[in-house]
Amino acid sequence: MSHNTFGHLFRMTTWGESHGPAIGCVVDGCPPGIPLTEADIQGFLDKRKPGQSRFTTQRKEADEVAIISGVFTDEKTGKQVTTGTPIALEIQNTDQRSKDYGDIKDKFRPGHADYSYFVKYGVRDYRGSGRASARETACRVAAGAVARKVLPGVTIRGALVQMGPHPITRENWDWGEVDENPFFSPDPKVVSHWGEYLDALRKDGNSCGAVIEVVAEGVPPGLGAPVYAKLDQDICSALMSINAVKGVEIGAGFATAAMTGTENADRMRLGDDGEPVFLSNHAGGIVGGISTGQAIVARFAVKPTSSILTPVQTVDKAGNETDVSTKGRHDPCVGIRAVPIGEAMMALVLADHYLRHRGQTGKG
Amino acid sequence: MSHNTFGHLFRMTTWGESHGPAIGCVVDGCPPGIPLTEADIQGFLDKRKPGQSRFTTQRKEADEVAIISGVFTDEKTGKQVTTGTPIALEIQNTDQRSKDYGDIKDKFRPGHADYSYFVKYGVRDYRGSGRASARETACRVAAGAVARKVLPGVTIRGALVQMGPHPITRENWDWGEVDENPFFSPDPKVVSHWGEYLDALRKDGNSCGAVIEVVAEGVPPGLGAPVYAKLDQDICSALMSINAVKGVEIGAGFATAAMTGTENADRMRLGDDGEPVFLSNHAGGIVGGISTGQAIVARFAVKPTSSILTPVQTVDKAGNETDVSTKGRHDPCVGIRAVPIGEAMMALVLADHYLRHRGQTGKG
Amino acid sequence: MSHNTFGHLFRMTTWGESHGPAIGCVVDGCPPGIPLTEADIQGFLDKRKPGQSRFTTQRKEADEVAIISGVFTDEKTGKQVTTGTPIALEIQNTDQRSKDYGDIKDKFRPGHADYSYFVKYGVRDYRGSGRASARETACRVAAGAVARKVLPGVTIRGALVQMGPHPITRENWDWGEVDENPFFSPDPKVVSHWGEYLDALRKDGNSCGAVIEVVAEGVPPGLGAPVYAKLDQDICSALMSINAVKGVEIGAGFATAAMTGTENADRMRLGDDGEPVFLSNHAGGIVGGISTGQAIVARFAVKPTSSILTPVQTVDKAGNETDVSTKGRHDPCVGIRAVPIGEAMMALVLADHYLRHRGQTGKG
Amino acid sequence: MSHNTFGHLFRMTTWGESHGPAIGCVVDGCPPGIPLTEADIQGFLDKRKPGQSRFTTQRKEADEVAIISGVFTDEKTGKQVTTGTPIALEIQNTDQRSKDYGDIKDKFRPGHADYSYFVKYGVRDYRGSGRASARETACRVAAGAVARKVLPGVTIRGALVQMGPHPITRENWDWGEVDENPFFSPDPKVVSHWGEYLDALRKDGNSCGAVIEVVAEGVPPGLGAPVYAKLDQDICSALMSINAVKGVEIGAGFATAAMTGTENADRMRLGDDGEPVFLSNHAGGIVGGISTGQAIVARFAVKPTSSILTPVQTVDKAGNETDVSTKGRHDPCVGIRAVPIGEAMMALVLADHYLRHRGQTGKG
Repeated sequence: MSHNTFGHLFRMTTWGESHGPAIGCVVDGCPPGIPLTEADIQGFLDKRKPGQSRFTTQRKEADEVAIISGVFTDEKTGKQVTTGTPIALEIQNTDQRSKDYGDIKDKFRPGHADYSYFVKYGVRDYRGSGRASARETACRVAAGAVARKVLPGVTIRGALVQMGPHPITRENWDWGEVDENPFFSPDPKVVSHWGEYLDALRKDGNSCGAVIEVVAEGVPPGLGAPVYAKLDQDICSALMSINAVKGVEIGAGFATAAMTGTENADRMRLGDDGEPVFLSNHAGGIVGGISTGQAIVARFAVKPTSSILTPVQTVDKAGNETDVSTKGRHDPCVGIRAVPIGEAMMALVLADHYLRHRGQTGKG
Repeated sequence: MSHNTFGHLFRMTTWGESHGPAIGCVVDGCPPGIPLTEADIQGFLDKRKPGQSRFTTQRKEADEVAIISGVFTDEKTGKQVTTGTPIALEIQNTDQRSKDYGDIKDKFRPGHADYSYFVKYGVRDYRGSGRASARETACRVAAGAVARKVLPGVTIRGALVQMGPHPITRENWDWGEVDENPFFSPDPKVVSHWGEYLDALRKDGNSCGAVIEVVAEGVPPGLGAPVYAKLDQDICSALMSINAVKGVEIGAGFATAAMTGTENADRMRLGDDGEPVFLSNHAGGIVGGISTGQAIVARFAVKPTSSILTPVQTVDKAGNETDVSTKGRHDPCVGIRAVPIGEAMMALVLADHYLRHRGQTGKG
Repeated sequence: MSHNTFGHLFRMTTWGESHGPAIGCVVDGCPPGIPLTEADIQGFLDKRKPGQSRFTTQRKEADEVAIISGVFTDEKTGKQVTTGTPIALEIQNTDQRSKDYGDIKDKFRPGHADYSYFVKYGVRDYRGSGRASARETACRVAAGAVARKVLPGVTIRGALVQMGPHPITRENWDWGEVDENPFFSPDPKVVSHWGEYLDALRKDGNSCGAVIEVVAEGVPPGLGAPVYAKLDQDICSALMSINAVKGVEIGAGFATAAMTGTENADRMRLGDDGEPVFLSNHAGGIVGGISTGQAIVARFAVKPTSSILTPVQTVDKAGNETDVSTKGRHDPCVGIRAVPIGEAMMALVLADHYLRHRGQTGKG
Repeated sequence: MSHNTFGHLFRMTTWGESHGPAIGCVVDGCPPGIPLTEADIQGFLDKRKPGQSRFTTQRKEADEVAIISGVFTDEKTGKQVTTGTPIALEIQNTDQRSKDYGDIKDKFRPGHADYSYFVKYGVRDYRGSGRASARETACRVAAGAVARKVLPGVTIRGALVQMGPHPITRENWDWGEVDENPFFSPDPKVVSHWGEYLDALRKDGNSCGAVIEVVAEGVPPGLGAPVYAKLDQDICSALMSINAVKGVEIGAGFATAAMTGTENADRMRLGDDGEPVFLSNHAGGIVGGISTGQAIVARFAVKPTSSILTPVQTVDKAGNETDVSTKGRHDPCVGIRAVPIGEAMMALVLADHYLRHRGQTGKG
């Protein structure tokens, strides 16, 4: 978790700006012998890719990943596998359109990292927000695809559970629906409503926030370590590192504040196999920072896209008061494309803790 | 953030169990030449100390801290100052009462780390929850007191803003009131109401959750680093590592999900001194993972105390279904004592990032 | 390897000054379930302890270690075992004699860290060299004793192979002799010669350097990771961190520079069990940064004790030229007591890499 | 220092195999605002580049570096400068010749990482040694060129001081000669002798080792931190991580073992400016793990190239005894090209410690 590196044993280092020649990452510490080709990664990148519907930015990026290192042919199987050495992944930037940044070059867009980068570094790549662009998250999704392969028997899925002020109806939850609509909604009944809401916002030059839920099933108990490498701590850290995220919660989350101890307690019984089962999952699968074997449930809130057509008051580098409106191609709700990113970050944390747990205890 | 160490340049490593002879921590990387005595630390420990009112556990711990290393007399001033070498802090455990743990020894208390520690490690110190006890947080408070001294001109304060389902009225906010009531409430009008609510819960053998807000003022702009050492990311990680925390948010947090881009934008103008000022602070002082100079605002949700007198269903180590009720001295609302802990974690993150920022940029 | 912490998965953080109330360390990341009592540690500390013969400092320290946390009774065996949580070890300082430091307080002793600490930190604990004292190495030895227990089937032994200009005769090497003489010499025939040499130096108010060899047998192949976590790299780092060490080598070390490729090649054949065996060990058991299964052999050079009675030219803090001679109780050859310290550092590196290798590959 | 990342605040992560499409690295944590173009890096790469004389491998690699991210035009100066975000550097592999690896594919070459990689990972890229190839060191040299720019007023230079059994005559040392001969020898008189020696070895299908010395002048005092981030410790770690290095020493190094305390003491006087000066530099510029302001002097021993034409006994993957001789284009003395690599590693360590020191103390 230093600078641009995430993870301890299973590590990802990302690099690149929105309008440079390419972006990429180095996945380090991956176990050897895992089958891995570009095809294993590309499907997840396609989910995140812009321009998939009218509800996301019209920037057209192929987002084709290339594996540059860290794999080789396994003689026994003839398959391309990981070698245990660093896996370099690279994605060319193909649709930068960096001709005109007149306004953004000198004005600080509220909600963007323009001002904070400028005061920190004194220089910034203003083209498409440079390093602060959500384009960096393509690398997370690519690395997350590798992380998934490290986790035997684990299923990680995400869904949009609130758009603007409009939540899903949880009774309608159907994982099968998530990939059938442009919002990754698990509730098919909310889709048309969300579409109308978002169309209206777009026409109005405005944007909205969202809440995403990520669920990991099949996670073995015992992952996570007290007291500063807690699994929920690292999941929160991972999700909070995604652009525009302003809140994270595990299990019942903020709602637990209003609960009593008797309401919140996840009672235990024995299952048919004689193993402990929990009668509820307010804990979200993690107690004392360590996984219990229940599904891990995390949610994160994404603020409304800061790039809006509606002019807002700001100042410029020269110290003048002015207004700024952000032209160009932007997602009216960046929360939508945050779904595969949230999944990827969950995968990265779990893969890292899986290896760390195995290191300390020999289990797994 | 590995195992029991928190931080990169300014680091804290904690150790100790609830019912061992002592607990302690090593604060490493502290700048030299900072005046530091036990008195600088003790006041913060006293705020966290149990037994201060009928609303917290009646365990009586003096919680007296001793500085064992890392300080020496500065010849010029005659004051005891930090030397730049590791500062070892130690607190003796004086009121363990570990005679009787019959029930807890073999039964997994729902919501406690009993089960997860057991499946991870195969052995656990069940006395007072061992390492999983909130007693560890005394070390955080002690280290946080050192961290505060590293941060010139920064004020870090916390308050309880919701107890169970009862929030404060934000219009009544008065920092001066926080230390005048047993709940660290900034709203004096809610105090008697909270008292009645908590008394009723206690009599009922029950407990409740809470929400704490921590505010850091005077933080220089530029702290934090993209993209995996973001300041908000590290604050979330720090707060989430506190026992019983289930959610964390920055600035407007989860509420931003329901906002539009025009509502959420923190508009900028020029202040009287010609420096940029923000007209609102939905961002909570952090944009793009970097501080802007505005007040940093974080909130975290604490679940209801899991140790309750009311029996709940569970299983034991031998694989039997049973009930467990937790006798002993427990806080009905652990959120109260989480206020100074949250402040300490904020201080630790800021001190670390202050040094890291100075390292990379030479500023500060 | 940050500040005062060594290791990644198996970590040690040390604290304390020579003349403070105590020194200690926190061993973090230890696997659970390993039997551990003070007796497992004390024997190694006794080897390092001063005052064992006339050839080491006459400072009398009991060096009794106390385990303060991280162990608990295993119900099945009744034995005290590690719990997987941080193991705090503490040693009281009992013989400080800090009354008189007049000379050392203001003068920079050549070869000591007096000047470099002063220019770095602006303040230093001059009593017994404070944090720069070799007393810190007692913590390494204690932590190393824990590390040994993590390594199944590994034997780590050290010996003094050169005192001043006088090397042992390698043909005389007998591990059984090492603990039978005050120098940890594996060559019984050199002992009386070394004794006379050191007696003469001591009478002369002088000191000498030494070379120590540490050998680890039974190390599984595969430990170490390219390219910046090489096993030999981390062993060198560990040994170089010991006070007064000025050089480190692995296997044939510096002698390989004068060899040809045909001389240096460790030829391979098949052993009786059909497993590869090496016909020589110039590599010292490590190739490409990874252990091969051969004995790991490291050597390190310790400079002559800087604390000598003979006056040498120096300057003081006030900026005057002066002479300094170091009174007090000092080892004429600090290399002797470096033997158990070198062993401990080897154990710490191997334990860390054993867990890291298990984490990444699942082996071990 | 984890896996393939080196450094803490100033960090380098390298990736790539000898015969993959490219190699590269990510330099993270670089201060912003430093002028940087490919030209600043290329000169150092050219020094390391193969095929410069008949004494190095005839592999022809252009080794042209491209900066892919982390730089932008500074508006004020019009120069391309670092932005504080990750600097991705990439070098295409252009002369792989990977058609024929028949022998090496299945046989373990003594002295190479063939066997150790195989037992660790179970799979390895045998083409040109894959990740274990010295080709990785081109990335170090590139990153080292960036590191140099972080260090104001520091000069880092290296030289070959021994080839096989033949050392230079130190009295002949002339830094101006180093780039005037194919061996980076500072002693012009030894050059023809070394040439004859190496020619003879090459004709004989053999190879030799070497010793390299690296000197850093102008290093500010105070860099390095006790006790596990000592400057000499990190320099040793850095140099030991270079392929084929078997020993490292600082200052007088192993020779100090044979010295007395009076001989070894670096006496101090006051210089003309009233600042302390040392009358000798046995310490190599580092005492107590902290720089003193004197020149930092390190030496490292490189073993003879393991790839030799002379057949040596070995075994193969199928478990047969056999012989192996390494055809192809190899350096008869890899120590020669290790000179710029050693300089680069010194620069990387100093840059990291420079930032860490500034972080903790505010100096520099």
